[in-house]
This record gives sequence, C-alpha cells and structure tokens, in this order.
Amino acid sequence: MKEKEFINIIKNTLNSDYIGDDCACLRDLGIVVTQDSLVEGVHFSLDFTTPYKLGWKSAMVNISDVCASGAEPKYLTVALSLPKNIGEDFVEEFYQGLKDACGEVQVVGGDITGSDKIFISVTAIGKTEGRKISSRKNANIGQKIIVSGGHGASGAGLKLLLGGKNEPSGLINSHLMPVAQRDFSLIVSTRQKNDYAMMDTSDGLADALSQIAESSCVNLEVDFSKIPYNKELESFDDLEDLVLLGGEDYQLVATVDEEVAKDFIIIGEVKSGSGVTILKQDKKIQLSKQDVEEKLFNHF
Amino acid sequence: MKEKEFINIIKNTLNSDYIGDDCACLRDLGIVVTQDSLVEGVHFSLDFTTPYKLGWKSAMVNISDVCASGAEPKYLTVALSLPKNIGEDFVEEFYQGLKDACGEVQVVGGDITGSDKIFISVTAIGKTEGRKISSRKNANIGQKIIVSGGHGASGAGLKLLLGGKNEPSGLINSHLMPVAQRDFSLIVSTRQKNDYAMMDTSDGLADALSQIAESSCVNLEVDFSKIPYNKELESFDDLEDLVLLGGEDYQLVATVDEEVAKDFIIIGEVKSGSGVTILKQDKKIQLSKQDVEEKLFNHF
Repeated sequence: MKEKEFINIIKNTLNSDYIGDDCACLRDLGIVVTQDSLVEGVHFSLDFTTPYKLGWKSAMVNISDVCASGAEPKYLTVALSLPKNIGEDFVEEFYQGLKDACGEVQVVGGDITGSDKIFISVTAIGKTEGRKISSRKNANIGQKIIVSGGHGASGAGLKLLLGGKNEPSGLINSHLMPVAQRDFSLIVSTRQKNDYAMMDTSDGLADALSQIAESSCVNLEVDFSKIPYNKELESFDDLEDLVLLGGEDYQLVATVDEEVAKDFIIIGEVKSGSGVTILKQDKKIQLSKQDVEEKLFNHF
Repeated sequence: MKEKEFINIIKNTLNSDYIGDDCACLRDLGIVVTQDSLVEGVHFSLDFTTPYKLGWKSAMVNISDVCASGAEPKYLTVALSLPKNIGEDFVEEFYQGLKDACGEVQVVGGDITGSDKIFISVTAIGKTEGRKISSRKNANIGQKIIVSGGHGASGAGLKLLLGGKNEPSGLINSHLMPVAQRDFSLIVSTRQKNDYAMMDTSDGLADALSQIAESSCVNLEVDFSKIPYNKELESFDDLEDLVLLGGEDYQLVATVDEEVAKDFIIIGEVKSGSGVTILKQDKKIQLSKQDVEEKLFNHF
C-alpha cells in the first residue's frame, strides 16, 4: 500500500474536486491552503539535523507549496507532538528556526501534544489577490518549461549525511535548510496571464514533470544540458539520477508563455503527447510515470 | 514539562499576538484557522473506537474550535500518518466518518505518510463574514454566561470505556462521537453586537470558565444547579467532577449581553474579581486556575 494508492481511496471517499494539487485553492475566501507532515524516523532523524534546522525545514516545505500555487505565503499553523524526554530547549530552538524561515509569514496557531516520536504537521495559508494561481492540470502545448534554480544538491546532501559525512556544507545545507522560491513565484504569478502549471520539486524534478504531464495530458520535453546543477555534484557517479530524481531541492518548475519565460532558465517545452522526454547527447529518453515512481523514495 | 509551559515558550519565541485563542482570526483574509492533533495512545486507542468514529471525532473537534470563534466552519485539511500494517479499510472508513461529521464543511487537502503510531492533525478554516468573532479576552462585567447543552456525559463515557463497559450508549457516544454546536455558534455570533467570549468545553467546563476569567480579568460566577447534564450521570458518585471537570463534551460556553442570553440556558454572570465561583446549595466554592488545572488530564 503506497501513498498514491491511499490518496485514490481518499479521493473516491470524499468525491472532492479539491484533492490533486499540493495546495487547495479556496476561491470564495481568496486563499490557498496546504498541510504537510514530517515524522521522526520517516522524514528526518535527529542524528542528522538540529531542532533549529528542523523548525526551519518544517516551515519552508509548506511555504514552498504555497509558492508553487503562485499565491503569497501569509500564515502558518503548527502542530507539534513530542516525546516526554524532549525539553524546553528543543521547543525554543525549533520555533526559532521556524520563525527565521518564515520571514514575513506569521505563525498564528497550532497545538502541542505528547507522543512516542516527534511529529510535526504544518499548515500554510496563502493569499491569491493579484496572483494567477497555477494548477498541474494547466500546462499548455507550446509553453516553455522554466526552473527557479539548480537540482540534485539536496539529494547529494542526504547521500553524504547517510554516509556519515558533513561536507561540503553547501550540499548538506541544501538538504537540511532548503529555501522556498518566493521571488520566482511572485514574478511568474503576476506576469503570467494565461493558465499555467507550477510545482515545487520536493519529490524530484522528474516527478514534478511527470505529474504535470499526466494531469495536463501533454508531453514535457526537457534538454538535460539546460538543467542547472551545483558543480560539486560532478564528483558523484549518479549525477543524472541526483538531478532528475533526487528530491527536496524545493525549487519551482513551471510551464509558462514565451514572453514570461524569457527572463528565466528555460529547460524545455510542452509538446503534444504524454510523459516526460529527456534529451541527452543526441538521445531521447522517454520516462514513463512508472519509471519515475519506482526510483522514488517511498514513505511506506 | 506541561503543555501550557511549552505554549509560553512558543509565545515568547514567536512574539506573536495570535497565540491565545483556539482559533487565530486573520482579519485581512476574513478567516479563522485552527489546528489540532490526535495521537494514538495519547488521545485515543483503537481498543475503544473505530476508524469511522475516529474520523468523525477528528473533524468534529476542529469544527468545534471554529464554532467557538463564532465563524462559519467551511474547510478542513487533514494530515494522517499510519503504521505499515494499516490498510485500505482503515483509510476508507476514517474518511467516511470524517466526511459524515463535516456536513457542509469540505475536506480540501492534506497529506498521508508513514509512522509508528496513528497520528492525525486536522486544520479547520472558518469564514468571518457576517459573524461577530469571540475572544476569551472579551468577557465583560454584567454579561450572562450561557451554555449550548449538557456537560459530563463525555467524561462519564470515557470512564465507562476505561472500565470495560459499552453502555449506556448515550454516554459512550458522547465521548466517541461528539457534535459541534454549529447552530448555537451561528445564533450567538450573528445576534451579539458587543465584544464577547466564547470557548468550547473540550478541556472541561471549569477549564473554559477559568481561561475566560483569567484572560478577561473578571470573575465568572456560576450556579451549579443551572448547568444541564444527562440524567444518567446521577448514578456516578463523582457527578460534580464529571460536570465541571470532565472534558470533551464539545459544548460551547459564552458570555453575552442579556438580550442575546434570554433564549439560551443561563448558568451565571460575569462579575468583577478573578477566577471561577461555583454556587452550590448556599455554598460559594472558589476555584482557582490551579485547582482546575490539577484535576485535568495531562497529555505529558
């Protein structure tokens, strides 16, 4: 039983139009809302991170989801469950990291309870006024595919941590303290006039491309040589996997009209067809949804 | 280390005006938001409840918080973390219970992840348009104290369950399937013109009274004989404790002006002073905040 199968059961039970994008857009209220959880032993280990960095990342991954919708991140609520042996220091450092990641976003509520393991669930609310809201269903043929920055660094950082290493610090920090792409989101969602797709690359760039392709019934063709990545990745023998499949970079990928794309890093184009096509040194590699999913880190 | 001490650390770290009421009121967006978690082994056990009833209660306790603010409950997001051995049936029944509890409220998102124990965190969003929003700081001297219904049944139900009993079913269901007081909230928040306090009695009636008294710097004087309770409670030798301290009835208690109060059950009056005073058979029992807290079920 995998996450995506559970989500299908939920969709069927609720019969809801809202389940699909990372954020739900509540048009009557002019807001988007998203909620994501981090579970000790599943999403993080205190062997590799600190309470401060955990607070930072908990806020940032949810702010990133709001950015992916194109809305302006405004407010967070935070539910924290902690084992008995966790004390005041943890709570204070966690919230300091959360606050520092927030910037102008305000933490307005939540609760704190007991538990066996640390469990964090954050809800983020964004304002849609003045912004064009994205949907992964809205990629259109002829649009350019743009990204906000480099991919693979977070996956490489995780690999280093799991191998007992603590540097290069740039790669390690990419994993532990990602940064949501607020400016990219602001510019795209205020300049783009037609419908468009935008996602963050929390589950990997190829996964985001694959989700957009499937939801929009189009083919996304990407030139691998155009995808930016940190030069330190060149020492990894699985560079391509890290760039395409390594998750948690929290960059944004969007399909936008040419006049909006021209100021950004263009990595490809939306074409008719299905799935994701990667152009690499005269080869055309077709990635099916299954190809992408089978290489993904699986929560279950 | 207790929940309330952690909350003080959080308030100091965030330096936020929002932390205090169960819902945060986001005036620029015209919404209130609240998030609450239920943890297996802390807040519930599958020995006593079913996935359907757990889904029901998870929705209802958050809808109740929105009702306590006076706002109209509109949307929920749900984060669910499940151990590997939990299957499709659980997810389907849980979401069916959630949906049935929601009524017109829509479930619009959330996520599902792995974990060791079941962890549920629900966020509820309410709309403030046309409603006067409450705050526990806003009780005013001379206002009447009103309640939406009887107290003690949920606590009695929990006591029966812990003692291995399954009836009377009315008491058991009060605990497992509470009902948020949407109509009471609607009428109070649309009729009341001046500032007022309203809370749900999730942590017990005396706790809610005590929180309002402290936050508003007033004394709440309540006539015990006016507090409604289920007649089946008379067979319990700790009737008074169940009515005043037993939690999870999810009724509402409010301090409102006399012309609003006249259509409701009036149990007392807001006076100058501090703390909670219970009038019982010619006696005046003064309950300090500490008295109330020491009898509370403590998560930690």
